[in-house]
Amino acid sequence: MKSDIKFDVQSSRDYSIYIDELKELSFSRKVAIITNPKVAGFHLQTLLQGLKVDALFIITVPDGESYKNQQTLDLILENLFNHQFNRNDTLIAFGGGVIGDMTGFAASIYQRGINFIQIPTTLLSQVDASVGGKTGINNKFGKNLIGAFHQPQAVYIETQFLETLPSREFGAGVAEIVKMAVTFDADFFSWLEEADLKSRKDLQVAIRKSVETKAYVVSQDEKEKGLRAVLNYGHTFAHVIENLTGYKRYLHGEAVAIGICMANDLSVKLGLLTKSEAGRIKALLERYGLPTTYKIDDIEDFYQHFFLDKKTDNAKIKFILASTLGGNVIKDDITKEDVITVLDGYCTCNSINSLYFTLPRTSQLHLTNLSI
Amino acid sequence: MKSDIKFDVQSSRDYSIYIDELKELSFSRKVAIITNPKVAGFHLQTLLQGLKVDALFIITVPDGESYKNQQTLDLILENLFNHQFNRNDTLIAFGGGVIGDMTGFAASIYQRGINFIQIPTTLLSQVDASVGGKTGINNKFGKNLIGAFHQPQAVYIETQFLETLPSREFGAGVAEIVKMAVTFDADFFSWLEEADLKSRKDLQVAIRKSVETKAYVVSQDEKEKGLRAVLNYGHTFAHVIENLTGYKRYLHGEAVAIGICMANDLSVKLGLLTKSEAGRIKALLERYGLPTTYKIDDIEDFYQHFFLDKKTDNAKIKFILASTLGGNVIKDDITKEDVITVLDGYCTCNSINSLYFTLPRTSQLHLTNLSI
Repeated sequence: MKSDIKFDVQSSRDYSIYIDELKELSFSRKVAIITNPKVAGFHLQTLLQGLKVDALFIITVPDGESYKNQQTLDLILENLFNHQFNRNDTLIAFGGGVIGDMTGFAASIYQRGINFIQIPTTLLSQVDASVGGKTGINNKFGKNLIGAFHQPQAVYIETQFLETLPSREFGAGVAEIVKMAVTFDADFFSWLEEADLKSRKDLQVAIRKSVETKAYVVSQDEKEKGLRAVLNYGHTFAHVIENLTGYKRYLHGEAVAIGICMANDLSVKLGLLTKSEAGRIKALLERYGLPTTYKIDDIEDFYQHFFLDKKTDNAKIKFILASTLGGNVIKDDITKEDVITVLDGYCTCNSINSLYFTLPRTSQLHLTNLSI
Repeated sequence: MKSDIKFDVQSSRDYSIYIDELKELSFSRKVAIITNPKVAGFHLQTLLQGLKVDALFIITVPDGESYKNQQTLDLILENLFNHQFNRNDTLIAFGGGVIGDMTGFAASIYQRGINFIQIPTTLLSQVDASVGGKTGINNKFGKNLIGAFHQPQAVYIETQFLETLPSREFGAGVAEIVKMAVTFDADFFSWLEEADLKSRKDLQVAIRKSVETKAYVVSQDEKEKGLRAVLNYGHTFAHVIENLTGYKRYLHGEAVAIGICMANDLSVKLGLLTKSEAGRIKALLERYGLPTTYKIDDIEDFYQHFFLDKKTDNAKIKFILASTLGGNVIKDDITKEDVITVLDGYCTCNSINSLYFTLPRTSQLHLTNLSI
């Protein structure tokens, strides 16, 4: 008996991203705010002022990427079970990328899915992480290796929360803004060169532009089968750098800034970008205090680290490259020689000339220690 | 600045369910078969005969619902990481509902989603659990409380795998077939009354009909916002019975059979079903050795257990009822009095007259022990 039953599951989710419009939020059910003590200390009072809710629970988790793990996730879930949350109740992720990723993942697996809202409080999560539904936790094998695609009900982006953001974290967010501009929108890039993101007005424009770009990309390709991969521009290199430095030396956005410069060197080598264009991108990153170089100690080891990435498919490294300003191309056929040549350019550079280390600048020995 | 960005994510997945067509499966990548030692012993050789694959990994997990937990899930995931599986590799769930639910959930969260195929080997998983993308694990708070909606790439239903199925497990599958017929298709129900599911020909027809019904329902409502809830007919009562008997006394399908009879009693009370219709349903279940009654010791305690269900929304118990044969209705406004009246009918019944207990039938004492 031939019984091939075709089965079609369609799901469409449509939600809104609001910029500077968080006045009042009302819920007729239970709400849990997931946050960390630092964000809570600065901003929880502001959030609570506009919140109307039947029953409110506040769950704080320790601050930092190292807590984005199964153990913290279990504690969040257990808390929700203890308070008998059900599918129609709501979680609010109130914090940076760590809080957003972990809350989103908890929301996606709690009773097979519960509502959640993102209220990102860092520039990086406002322009990038909070939009697009990537959620997850780290494990001993790497970053974000366990997770889900789970879209929030809404995203509220409030620039007032950035007023307490340390300048390194601000810069880290700028790196992702630059990423969007370079790969999708030359006009936006030129505008960024003239703008001052420290002014709230310009910052709002940049956030809106970045979010629109990301929303467009994700609506075309939620599960990263094609176009969405372009958002990993700079990240292939950045992940290796983060891994080699134990996720301690650079903020994610800082590693991305370096990764963008490395990817651009490859673009220049392949004739996709002019030296002048690469220089403009580097200059823009440096204007916001971002590192743009990194001392590679062992080129072969650096190269082998590309294969640990979950996006490295079938032993082919996928490089996302800028192709003239505002354009992009995904390449998985770049020769090892070409990559090595680019990496070689980072073997003699002095990575210690970053803003972020106050070690004495006189001794070459410190440089070696830093790279461990 | 008003910046409300509308964001639309559409995902459409379309896949096939094959009945008795598992001849050959080819993969140009890594494949992991997740199974248990019992199923492997009976049927793995048959599966391997038709399998062409680049690299094959077989992961066996202990047999039984009590292993459908975080610990087993972690072991599966760790195994995949150790063998460097990536998003384009494939998991095959080869077993009953426990294997399917756990493999599906692992597939949904491993690197935010990896391919998986269902090859169910029990009747219950063939007609119900393998179709529709519900995946998950149990925790100390209850069954399937952590999980995801994650659709497989394909489902292969092979009736030959049922030849080694114990008759209690066969009956448990029949309960779900009866569920589909009663709530969606009166003709199918009449056909079932005449058919003999122990014959392979009739069984194939019944499986195909059940799967088509389920596929239709899920394609209308994947996330169980409405219609899909009808598939929980009998389950509201069954979950309480399973919980009260520690998930040990009845197979899930057996508890569903009892739950169907309880739900029907409520339907009869509300004038939705005639006594004769309820009697025909009960007779059909009993023909396949299914239990249709259960001794309730404490009515109030039984009633309170409804509120532990993840589908019990906002303190309203949702009852899914048959409304004439082939029809259904979801009611959340049934009075406690009406429910109690129905439950009261189960306080004096002799639940020991089931096929499955070989305890002496002379002593009332044993009955009490059984209900603990």
